[in-house]
Amino acid sequence: MTTSTADLAETIEESALLTPQFNADGLIPAITTDAASGVVLMLAWMNAEALNKTIETGQAWYWSRSRRRLWHKGATSGQVQQVEELRIDCDQDAVWLKVRVGGDGGCCHTGRVSCFYRRIVAEPGGPMLHRQSGALPQSG
Amino acid sequence: MTTSTADLAETIEESALLTPQFNADGLIPAITTDAASGVVLMLAWMNAEALNKTIETGQAWYWSRSRRRLWHKGATSGQVQQVEELRIDCDQDAVWLKVRVGGDGGCCHTGRVSCFYRRIVAEPGGPMLHRQSGALPQSG
Repeated sequence: MTTSTADLAETIEESALLTPQFNADGLIPAITTDAASGVVLMLAWMNAEALNKTIETGQAWYWSRSRRRLWHKGATSGQVQQVEELRIDCDQDAVWLKVRVGGDGGCCHTGRVSCFYRRIVAEPGGPMLHRQSGALPQSG
Repeated sequence: MTTSTADLAETIEESALLTPQFNADGLIPAITTDAASGVVLMLAWMNAEALNKTIETGQAWYWSRSRRRLWHKGATSGQVQQVEELRIDCDQDAVWLKVRVGGDGGCCHTGRVSCFYRRIVAEPGGPMLHRQSGALPQSG
């Protein structure tokens, strides 16, 4: 029995089977949004173990590419991410987590709510970055 | 004059200069959300040219990894994405587009509004995918 490329795509896109398509490094990108506000908090990466732990525990686990190890987000900072919903895309090579953030509500290592605190703006001399409000309510 | 790793990180994270950190394939992941609803529509990739065209034209351009060519989203389908806001993250290796979708309002090649139309649900026998409502209003 052979399976055509079209059959395989159909299976990945329409079936109820979780078959994540990890990249050559064994990773899949994970988009994390705030479940209440819809703000994109971060883009991180998961390996199979991080994805499984996220599903099993209901908290976000990632693979830290810089530290090359599994990363339980918030384990030290208290910024634990409770997963309200976890989704996967059509070709199963990206996931989307809607989360509630614990601790001080922050996400970014720079101390902001979201990692996406700068807007790219087209200017006559070329694109520039404009900082948006992104400080934590508690921070000075 | 030397620049330390910490200085470089500080520059990338805090300056107003756009210095996208493309990966080994010359690509950066792009998260696209609906500007009105906040729904994550897709995760795609941009090379430098796609990012520049997106900034210059105010419409979303990507790099199609499967077709290996620049991709003006909606050029044939009418599902053009007007960029209301473009953001970049702390380490400048991911961008976030808030868009208004033209044509029939769809985004996914499967005919749905968003590519993220399945939820991952932990079940006793292991995780399964549950389809969520994601059909276009106009579709049968």
